[in-house]
Amino acid sequence: MTPSIARKSSKFRESQIRRLFAEVEKMRARGEDVYFLSAGQPGIPPDEELVEYMMKIVLSGRGKVFRYSPSRGLPTLLEAISRDLKKYGKIDVPSSNILVTTGASEAIYVAILALVKERREAVIFDPTYVIYRDTLEFVGAKIKRIPEHIENEFQPSEEAIREALSNKTSVVIITTPDNPTGRILDESRAKLIVDLAREYDFWIIADEAYKHMVYEGEHLWLSKLDPDRVISINSFSKDAAIPGLRLGYVYGPKRVIRRLEKIRQHITLCPPTLPQYIAEYYLESGIKERYLKKVLPIYRRRRDILFDNLVSGGLIRAFKPPAGMFIFADVRSATEALSSDDRFFAERLLHEMKVSVVPGSSFGEVGRGFIRLSFVSENEERLKIAADKIKEFINKISG
Amino acid sequence: MTPSIARKSSKFRESQIRRLFAEVEKMRARGEDVYFLSAGQPGIPPDEELVEYMMKIVLSGRGKVFRYSPSRGLPTLLEAISRDLKKYGKIDVPSSNILVTTGASEAIYVAILALVKERREAVIFDPTYVIYRDTLEFVGAKIKRIPEHIENEFQPSEEAIREALSNKTSVVIITTPDNPTGRILDESRAKLIVDLAREYDFWIIADEAYKHMVYEGEHLWLSKLDPDRVISINSFSKDAAIPGLRLGYVYGPKRVIRRLEKIRQHITLCPPTLPQYIAEYYLESGIKERYLKKVLPIYRRRRDILFDNLVSGGLIRAFKPPAGMFIFADVRSATEALSSDDRFFAERLLHEMKVSVVPGSSFGEVGRGFIRLSFVSENEERLKIAADKIKEFINKISG
Repeated sequence: MTPSIARKSSKFRESQIRRLFAEVEKMRARGEDVYFLSAGQPGIPPDEELVEYMMKIVLSGRGKVFRYSPSRGLPTLLEAISRDLKKYGKIDVPSSNILVTTGASEAIYVAILALVKERREAVIFDPTYVIYRDTLEFVGAKIKRIPEHIENEFQPSEEAIREALSNKTSVVIITTPDNPTGRILDESRAKLIVDLAREYDFWIIADEAYKHMVYEGEHLWLSKLDPDRVISINSFSKDAAIPGLRLGYVYGPKRVIRRLEKIRQHITLCPPTLPQYIAEYYLESGIKERYLKKVLPIYRRRRDILFDNLVSGGLIRAFKPPAGMFIFADVRSATEALSSDDRFFAERLLHEMKVSVVPGSSFGEVGRGFIRLSFVSENEERLKIAADKIKEFINKISG
Repeated sequence: MTPSIARKSSKFRESQIRRLFAEVEKMRARGEDVYFLSAGQPGIPPDEELVEYMMKIVLSGRGKVFRYSPSRGLPTLLEAISRDLKKYGKIDVPSSNILVTTGASEAIYVAILALVKERREAVIFDPTYVIYRDTLEFVGAKIKRIPEHIENEFQPSEEAIREALSNKTSVVIITTPDNPTGRILDESRAKLIVDLAREYDFWIIADEAYKHMVYEGEHLWLSKLDPDRVISINSFSKDAAIPGLRLGYVYGPKRVIRRLEKIRQHITLCPPTLPQYIAEYYLESGIKERYLKKVLPIYRRRRDILFDNLVSGGLIRAFKPPAGMFIFADVRSATEALSSDDRFFAERLLHEMKVSVVPGSSFGEVGRGFIRLSFVSENEERLKIAADKIKEFINKISG
């Protein structure tokens, strides 16, 4: 007999995205050719010059890249981020208001620990990114959801926003550009949320990891609407295409950032050092501009091809995302024919057709009967084949 | 007006070690020459061949080192760790019982979340590594301390062990080789703790980050005493000298490791990818043996020099550590002369003498009037000067 595990930690459930990732890795190791549409893994490698710089800094700064970093991040990177926010977002964020983190995910985790109060309400959208829910439950928040439907291009209605937010709200988490839907939150709705945040005095966590992955329209910089109330989450995994290096950052009011730094000292001590030098060079050398100019048109074309091929034939309904890395597609006709759910659908699709997608119900109730498909990991030809395979699968199970 | 920060997160206080680290970085940026004895930062760079391999893998495996890793770690690294544990510890740990983490610190954090129950007792030594306490308080545990005194070479007494552990105990955290004292826990005392763990049914978290930094005697592999009850924390920061890459691992019963993996998916998603390839090569290529053979005699000499110079003259009493990276030195004669405490002592020592050490009270009540000095970060000559400066400082303030 051995002791039991702490019940509270059972709030952390297995991420479907991570489970599928491991499953696909295993299938690949067995030599199977899997169409990998289940993760936001950029398919185009990072910029060549960035990789060369990495070699250079490892050689020349041998000592420093292997040493611990200050807990808040390298001062020069903090300053580079501050300049970058000014350049792209036209916002003034002093480096004292920034914390470099181990990916955006650590930023989300420590922000929830710092800002969400026990027994108060935490409001998230439905569907929304999977990682928030379990941590919110772990800190003892009551979760309320603002539904977003495909009929309204995944924009929340004013009524739904007003219904969810109240003086019981502790925090609202806004993801824009969104994961899984790719919608950019409409500015008038964002302003309404900020107005209500002032009225009811709650925090806004803005997950802006996909802020540079915009194909039509413009990113909405939430901190502009209220810098004292918005905590913005950011990543180098998406636009710089270095997710394996695990680097992100968070900015917001200084007293919040100080608290986040103290929490992180107990989890990861400090951000990884080498990736910080690379991120600094990425921001300051002109590589960022050049790289985005190169990859955004490619990802846009991939999106178009996947979207057009999915919806042609009328079996699948989908929202054409103006941003992000995913298409959120409605396959209810097929799951209903199966008398089953999107989980079972995705499971069979992976094993019978070798196409990996994430079941939509992972993202919330509204996602039931949907699947999330990444359009960045595979090339145009393989995306076309994957879409054909999905339709073939639906025809097979519906027939 | 903006909302308040969640009170519970105030349990996470600023780490003195991290604060000093940032302070020293600032002083150095101003051009000041600081004797850096306040962090477990290996002073000898990682092995040359390891660095060359890093270049090679970045070039040849360009795609893969930038991609996300599976959440539990690369399967080949898990297997390499399993073989390494067999080789050095003579223990059988299947790769399914191992989780790769973002430094040992993430392993400690997720282990506490999974194993420590609210309102139950968590037992730690006094003095002990600073990072446990705040997380234990955050999860709502009641902390009990087992004192260890310099008079007994920082070994806990049997009575103190029996007094602290009971059927109210949820977990005990054992650090061996110890930080800050460098003592290796006596085997009979470890066996007593394991016996009590069986009797009262609690978990043992064994922080073995310094397991290879042993100068006299042998590391005590705690998992050997009860593999079903011991969760072992490990690091690549110390023996491989790559703390900036943030890589560690934890092994223990499979069902615990599965829970830890789910928790980590919500904090860091997955361990960093590039460092895992480097760690695998470090373990499998023969570099580890060669590197330890090279650095251990150097660190042993540095320990001897710092120790001898500190205690000569009789102003300072210290324990000569058989392992680890630190000397825990008693400067009570000086703090009493100052009518002050070790914090104030360390603060003045840093600013007046440019020697950074960690105040002993950071590690617990018993540490009051002590300072922790790293003997690995600086070379022999500088360690000698630092010791002289400390004695000069004591003479100055006592005079």
